[in-house]
Amino acid sequence: MQKASSALLPVIALDRKALLPLHKQIYDSFRKHITHGSLRAGQQIPSTRALALELKLSRIPVLTAYSQLLAEGYCETRIGAGTFVSRSLPQQEPVHGRQPGRNQAVAPKPRSVARRAQWLEPYRPQPWLGGLGAFCVGQPAYEEFPFHLWAKLVARHCRHPHINSLHYGGPFGWDGLRAAICSYLRTSRAVRCDPHQIMIVSGSQQALELTTRVLLDAGDAAWVEEPGYWLTKQVLTALGCKLAPVPVDGEGLDVAQGIRRCSKARAAYITPSHQFPLGVTMSAARRLQLLDWAERSGSWIVEDDYDSEYRYDSMPIASLQGLDRCDRVIYIGTFSKTLFPGLRLGYIVIPEDLLGRFAAIRNAMDLGSPHLYQAVLADFIGQGHFARHIRRMRQLYNQRRLALVDSLRKRFGRGVEILGAEAGMHLAVTYPMRIRDTEVSLRAVREKLWVAPLSSAYAERPDKRGFILGFGGTPAVQASEAVARLKSLLNA
Amino acid sequence: MQKASSALLPVIALDRKALLPLHKQIYDSFRKHITHGSLRAGQQIPSTRALALELKLSRIPVLTAYSQLLAEGYCETRIGAGTFVSRSLPQQEPVHGRQPGRNQAVAPKPRSVARRAQWLEPYRPQPWLGGLGAFCVGQPAYEEFPFHLWAKLVARHCRHPHINSLHYGGPFGWDGLRAAICSYLRTSRAVRCDPHQIMIVSGSQQALELTTRVLLDAGDAAWVEEPGYWLTKQVLTALGCKLAPVPVDGEGLDVAQGIRRCSKARAAYITPSHQFPLGVTMSAARRLQLLDWAERSGSWIVEDDYDSEYRYDSMPIASLQGLDRCDRVIYIGTFSKTLFPGLRLGYIVIPEDLLGRFAAIRNAMDLGSPHLYQAVLADFIGQGHFARHIRRMRQLYNQRRLALVDSLRKRFGRGVEILGAEAGMHLAVTYPMRIRDTEVSLRAVREKLWVAPLSSAYAERPDKRGFILGFGGTPAVQASEAVARLKSLLNA
Repeated sequence: MQKASSALLPVIALDRKALLPLHKQIYDSFRKHITHGSLRAGQQIPSTRALALELKLSRIPVLTAYSQLLAEGYCETRIGAGTFVSRSLPQQEPVHGRQPGRNQAVAPKPRSVARRAQWLEPYRPQPWLGGLGAFCVGQPAYEEFPFHLWAKLVARHCRHPHINSLHYGGPFGWDGLRAAICSYLRTSRAVRCDPHQIMIVSGSQQALELTTRVLLDAGDAAWVEEPGYWLTKQVLTALGCKLAPVPVDGEGLDVAQGIRRCSKARAAYITPSHQFPLGVTMSAARRLQLLDWAERSGSWIVEDDYDSEYRYDSMPIASLQGLDRCDRVIYIGTFSKTLFPGLRLGYIVIPEDLLGRFAAIRNAMDLGSPHLYQAVLADFIGQGHFARHIRRMRQLYNQRRLALVDSLRKRFGRGVEILGAEAGMHLAVTYPMRIRDTEVSLRAVREKLWVAPLSSAYAERPDKRGFILGFGGTPAVQASEAVARLKSLLNA
Repeated sequence: MQKASSALLPVIALDRKALLPLHKQIYDSFRKHITHGSLRAGQQIPSTRALALELKLSRIPVLTAYSQLLAEGYCETRIGAGTFVSRSLPQQEPVHGRQPGRNQAVAPKPRSVARRAQWLEPYRPQPWLGGLGAFCVGQPAYEEFPFHLWAKLVARHCRHPHINSLHYGGPFGWDGLRAAICSYLRTSRAVRCDPHQIMIVSGSQQALELTTRVLLDAGDAAWVEEPGYWLTKQVLTALGCKLAPVPVDGEGLDVAQGIRRCSKARAAYITPSHQFPLGVTMSAARRLQLLDWAERSGSWIVEDDYDSEYRYDSMPIASLQGLDRCDRVIYIGTFSKTLFPGLRLGYIVIPEDLLGRFAAIRNAMDLGSPHLYQAVLADFIGQGHFARHIRRMRQLYNQRRLALVDSLRKRFGRGVEILGAEAGMHLAVTYPMRIRDTEVSLRAVREKLWVAPLSSAYAERPDKRGFILGFGGTPAVQASEAVARLKSLLNA
């Protein structure tokens, strides 16, 4: 007969109807008692026989639970004496009531994070970027995308995948897609590149982040367009760089002003084909000035060519990268505008001597992009669907922009100036009077109009007020009514 | 009649058989002459009529090319005088011969990048991670994955996608997948979490990177397991953090030694369920000590739970996060081992008060993960396929590990020690004598054996030599032959 032990029986709450196996419930109960301090180091626990009797169970689940507790070191056996809570466990303070930081009615006080994590404010989405529909910036015509065709390509790659497509793919991405992008860029964008200079990234946002990590240190200054793209500024801020806003005029970034304001900038971040948000095309003179500055100062040019595929009244503007004689340009592109943003695919054209640096950081960041969509996209380009889709969309967006411009002219007359409608998927309207564009944008959100306030694109004091209106996702027949609603919001 | 102009005719090389339209060829030629300095600012160019005559073309392509050159600002017209290279262009030095940095026989000299980009060496893949097959670490049994089923789910989500799945998805990822992961983690891993604490990331590598960006500054020290996972060290190094290697013994990370060696560490990066590479399970005592240290020092614990689904002789070990009473643990998981690495999906369980910080940095990094696989995976989990696949793989990997252990015992006898075969998809073998494991691994690569040298997992002087052998991708019937080949390499 087993000798009586001094073990107290802890409360083991069993739920025989629960999905969790009984042995797991027993194990969990003991572990909780131990870690919460109600069973203390060195304290004896009941024998498996005694516990099984008490719980009116067979001994099997109890034995299973005990062997797990022993294996994980919560308990130990002493020969002839029984089972005890391990003496090597540090003593736990008993927990009373609710635990800190969890499920409390009052939000927990945020603890301090790294200084570098405080360069950005905690995340709060911009309300006017929160929806889909009229004027949404960056929304392509989803309804016109050839999903039937796309789904076929996806299915083909998915049913019988090659083993290499399932494994880690490396920081540069899939060679088939790199080659397809390379020939596209050479032909359509006058980019000078070889396939091995192309890195596939998870969207142009990652391209901006990676480029900044490789080329700029915290504390370095960078020219940004004023006004300019929100998320370029987020990247630079997140990485501790100083923004040096340089005004944009009718010829694009004013290089002479940039040099006057901040000649020591390590890089210039620009959108020369279709400036975001004002839509200017950078003039040839400014391009050559900028290249000249980069060469003389040993600085870098980051060319974000985000929507240059769509140009309505002339040929697409050749890339700045193609003019560069000193390999000072990092060229960035994306499929978010030509296909859809949920794809999360973009690319960087990297100067030869920087390839190893970009790859090292990229590898540490995320080991590379997922494979499936890379393979599908390579086929989509290679089989001519990409070029066809762009041609169709150029016509469609041309109709949409003409309808929007027409509606704006009719409703507002000379009350607004329309900027940058020659290309891309958005235009800007500016007002001569000082409207509070942010307030109007917030009111518009409640009406499901997604107009971004122009002032939100400025790093310093805005010298223009108005809105950025996307037309890619706004069908021509809806333009007039949407413009009417925008006007009534302005008058409210 | 047009008056004779002083324009010299530049060399315009036309290829009538080329795919590039003639107007584009003319435009390109002029642009090149201008940017390369052979046509100078203010110099007159031929009239469209004269050039068309000279080139034996209709005037239409010439007119198109000229209008583009005018639109982009390369040229300007003076009324009554003709067309000129814009006087506003900065003068370009003529280019002679090849251009610097491109297509040269001699590799260009690398230019300096940011200091922070130099914390890592330029990328060079580890040879023993370069292939697939026997012993490859991190290779699951691809041939056993239910691709037929998977492809069906993919096809369903691809043919009629919801518009929200095509647009930008936000930094936390898709709610459906977050909920599915949350209930999986609560049930199977004893993680305490709500769905809104879960962020979908592009693999556990990105989770490590993001966590480090939020919690550690450059110069901060972090405990890493010695030996430990290569890529954790890469992330910390890439972000300027100091590695504080802490020895791993039979109970896991030696917390007391950690405190002795570097008490001011801001974080501990650990793999408590199945230590990489030695395979130890961290004991209960060490877990509680570590939590106690984190609480007292205000430091963080980064729990990388990369392969805990596979445990062969006992129940899976509950997560360390589930024991944490102070929200000091960041819990990281991945689908690279349970599904396949090409998926690039993982997750972080983030303490409530840090959510806004993680999201801000993630948003600046890449705006979130692609949607399709998130939706597919949520179905795969929700419909029970995930649990079924893990159960099947646990049996299969159990056979594979038994075959490998058996073969090692037969071939090497007591010549090696086998570590960490109780769980996961790899084990470690160590040798009593001092072998040069890196040299053997390099020889093995030539034989298509992918054994990682144990010494490569040490940050400091290795105290063990041997190999990390993956068995997930090594069928049981091949184990004996592969072990025999490894042995002959050792004897060579």
